[in-house]
Amino acid sequence: MQPLVQLLAVTASPPSLGDNTGDVDRLKKTLRSQIGTRPLVVPYGRLSVVAAGFRRAGFKGVAVVNDLDTSLELVDFLGAPPKVLAGIALDLGTTHLEATLVDLAGGEILARANRPNSQIAVGADILSRIHFAVREEGLSRLKRMVTDDINLLAEELAGEVGLEANDIRAMTVSGNTTMVHFLLGLDPYHLCREPYIPLVNAPDPCRAAELGICIHPAALVWLLPSVGSYFGGDLISGILASGLDMAEETSMLIDVGTNAEVVLGNREWLVACAGAAGPALEGGVARMGMRAGPGAIEHVEFDPENGALHCRTIGNEPPRGICGSGIIDLVAALYLGRVIDLRGKFRPAAAGDRLIATPDGPAFVVVPAEKAANGEPVILSQVDLDALMRSKAAMYSILTTLTNQVGVEFAEIQHIFVAGAFGRHIAPRQAIVLGMLPDLPLDTYAPVGNSSLDGARRVLLEGAARNRCRELVRKITYIELNVNQEFMIRFSGAKFIPHTDQTLFPSVPFFENDC
Amino acid sequence: MQPLVQLLAVTASPPSLGDNTGDVDRLKKTLRSQIGTRPLVVPYGRLSVVAAGFRRAGFKGVAVVNDLDTSLELVDFLGAPPKVLAGIALDLGTTHLEATLVDLAGGEILARANRPNSQIAVGADILSRIHFAVREEGLSRLKRMVTDDINLLAEELAGEVGLEANDIRAMTVSGNTTMVHFLLGLDPYHLCREPYIPLVNAPDPCRAAELGICIHPAALVWLLPSVGSYFGGDLISGILASGLDMAEETSMLIDVGTNAEVVLGNREWLVACAGAAGPALEGGVARMGMRAGPGAIEHVEFDPENGALHCRTIGNEPPRGICGSGIIDLVAALYLGRVIDLRGKFRPAAAGDRLIATPDGPAFVVVPAEKAANGEPVILSQVDLDALMRSKAAMYSILTTLTNQVGVEFAEIQHIFVAGAFGRHIAPRQAIVLGMLPDLPLDTYAPVGNSSLDGARRVLLEGAARNRCRELVRKITYIELNVNQEFMIRFSGAKFIPHTDQTLFPSVPFFENDC
Repeated sequence: MQPLVQLLAVTASPPSLGDNTGDVDRLKKTLRSQIGTRPLVVPYGRLSVVAAGFRRAGFKGVAVVNDLDTSLELVDFLGAPPKVLAGIALDLGTTHLEATLVDLAGGEILARANRPNSQIAVGADILSRIHFAVREEGLSRLKRMVTDDINLLAEELAGEVGLEANDIRAMTVSGNTTMVHFLLGLDPYHLCREPYIPLVNAPDPCRAAELGICIHPAALVWLLPSVGSYFGGDLISGILASGLDMAEETSMLIDVGTNAEVVLGNREWLVACAGAAGPALEGGVARMGMRAGPGAIEHVEFDPENGALHCRTIGNEPPRGICGSGIIDLVAALYLGRVIDLRGKFRPAAAGDRLIATPDGPAFVVVPAEKAANGEPVILSQVDLDALMRSKAAMYSILTTLTNQVGVEFAEIQHIFVAGAFGRHIAPRQAIVLGMLPDLPLDTYAPVGNSSLDGARRVLLEGAARNRCRELVRKITYIELNVNQEFMIRFSGAKFIPHTDQTLFPSVPFFENDC
Repeated sequence: MQPLVQLLAVTASPPSLGDNTGDVDRLKKTLRSQIGTRPLVVPYGRLSVVAAGFRRAGFKGVAVVNDLDTSLELVDFLGAPPKVLAGIALDLGTTHLEATLVDLAGGEILARANRPNSQIAVGADILSRIHFAVREEGLSRLKRMVTDDINLLAEELAGEVGLEANDIRAMTVSGNTTMVHFLLGLDPYHLCREPYIPLVNAPDPCRAAELGICIHPAALVWLLPSVGSYFGGDLISGILASGLDMAEETSMLIDVGTNAEVVLGNREWLVACAGAAGPALEGGVARMGMRAGPGAIEHVEFDPENGALHCRTIGNEPPRGICGSGIIDLVAALYLGRVIDLRGKFRPAAAGDRLIATPDGPAFVVVPAEKAANGEPVILSQVDLDALMRSKAAMYSILTTLTNQVGVEFAEIQHIFVAGAFGRHIAPRQAIVLGMLPDLPLDTYAPVGNSSLDGARRVLLEGAARNRCRELVRKITYIELNVNQEFMIRFSGAKFIPHTDQTLFPSVPFFENDC
């Protein structure tokens, strides 16, 4: 397994007149048989603690060793092994942070916690936060917000299993490139400016104390590397989870948030790209949009006979909003029910009295006020719908541009893995109806869950996964779509349901002269 | 050469849409061709600085790289090479600190400086400082004293060549084990207690900022390793300078201060020991003793005919005191002139009116008040003489115990290297007369100068010297003399001039029934 921090049992012969090796030298010498030839370093800040612990324990106990892959770091010595050797795997998302506390000996998840990203207070989206960072103290405030969030999560996780945050001895972070820049306090200026260059893609591991993270001060913080400004460690996690990089056949991984990130390839080659997918699919941005949580509408059926909508919410709670997959489901149903036309506009005749006027323009009442959780109707506005049309067009254009540049046909793709909450909840069929995903057999599509968090847990536990990450960064060819002409042309053609070229979507009904 | 810090010229292709490698990743990748396969790490604390420097310089300039031997540390990026890449080599002595500023490119010494060890204020000798360390704040005060001294030296050295202390990019330290413990803020408690165990002999390199040393914060501080509590990095320096560990024939290295440290061996094996030599040979301890500096009596001739003493001082200045080698010269001359008997006592009849009474007992006037620098006579008291007798007995006993335990005869020893100021000034002939050093041909003896400082300079400049240090620590067998019975017995026999067994010193006149 080779977790990021390891306990090594030590029984050293005590010092004597015949063997006056120094305490720390003796400990290192005794460990040598267990660690092979890798250099073993005691960082200056841990020297006194290690030596005092070794002597106090009578030269017998457990050494706490950080695994830096090419070298090892001896950071503590305990008289007896701790009840549990705990580490945190963190998914550092733009809107949410999600973390698990992991037993590094057995790999079990001991506790889970999540919380909204406090940076939302200064900017809902990444771009506005990048602009905030250039203000005086802006970057340091962003850094403090994210470390504060992490510290609260760490305390909560530790508390759940009767530990102190200080007992947490390692941490891995999977996040997008910008969030990682904020965590490290690195200037994000060039991330959003041509040619979109991160300050660093693969930072070397740091120590919790250096970052202001209040777990054990000597705990390693290992960050999943990114490939570019819009292709972060969360995607590397997705590749780890999907096994894309180890399969003989060609597959694809899709992650959808504000950006859509896509990887295509197999064990021989990997090509990636990312493009703005628009905020329509991200909770908290679309007016009624919300995270896929209790009360979120995730599935919708429309009865065109009587215009009735049947909504299923997560947890079967009264509806509070619509999550990303719910919106796709809803819009596909409304298209098939002919309430929405192929341009993505409401058809007033078909919508009937469900179409209301709002200060922002027309909106469709999905759930009337009396049936909704907050006493306010759940609505889908034309503004939200327009955003979704751009998102779905972007998504499909990204996929076609990427496959075209590599010379792979959709039909050659064995699996399409869909990451994140979106992947877990989306019905591929409805996404195909909208022309968001290619018209392939449904069993081509497979969710990979919160692969970002899963990847963080893997690198926390497995040296091989950490090596695989580094290998992936070298292996992936990244195509920048932000300035890609082909993408722009394809985007225009994809802004219809399902597409201006209907032959691309033979399984989807096409309603002519519908506008 | 492979100095501790290196400048590597870099010309990287600037980022583009077709090559969106992160800034730091790009820099590392470009350096790869120059550094081979060793891991290259950017420490978290330097990440922003390196990236900003690289971009500011237009991706072209010089990388500043610390050499950790098994890995490299990228700590800075400059648009143009600095005027001089400077490092400090420091001899961290109990009474004095001596340092050179070295040009790491060419190896030249740019400046020299020295100052007394401020810790003298809390304890003249190491033992009293170890006792001081257990007081509240004692250790941290000792640490601050030594870092303050180093900071003053660094500022002085930098100023002499028109640099700032912050321009100094590396530092090496050669000192005794206790002084290194003080510098690192490590508990010295066990150093002076059986079985005399250092907290660490070979600490990993640290960074200047970690130690509170005000040179460049990312400068490596590389400490010469020690072998035991009484065998420090200063002795390892001596071995480097003498080449003891690389010669086919067996030789010996002697360093004399409060302790006498001795190494015996050749390229196959090395055995070392140390023992208390007494303070008689150390400046500042014997009443009229002083460091080998201007005004110190370093050579003495005695005319037994008329009782006249001819003293030569360092710099030919009026005499202010006697340095260690001067005391040996003086006592040998007085023994040969029969003013001192074989037990090391003054012979009142022969001393005449030069023997005066003092509150501490009899004393011999070496230089009368009217000829001395301070208007006070330079005297040698019976107390000082007794101390010297113990020192010389200890020295000889150490040498005989060591050679006997290894089974080497004195006659088999090719060279005896004598380190330090003592080695530079001592007349081996006079030391033989006293029975301090074995009665060997005079060309056996060779001074090696301030080998401690020289060793520090070597490890600053040469990777091979650093490796040799680490190798030496593994290779040396250390014999603890503090509790050695054989040593105790030999010590009693050596408390005569030249020795109770005169056959050991065939070249020295023996005066029977002299007391």
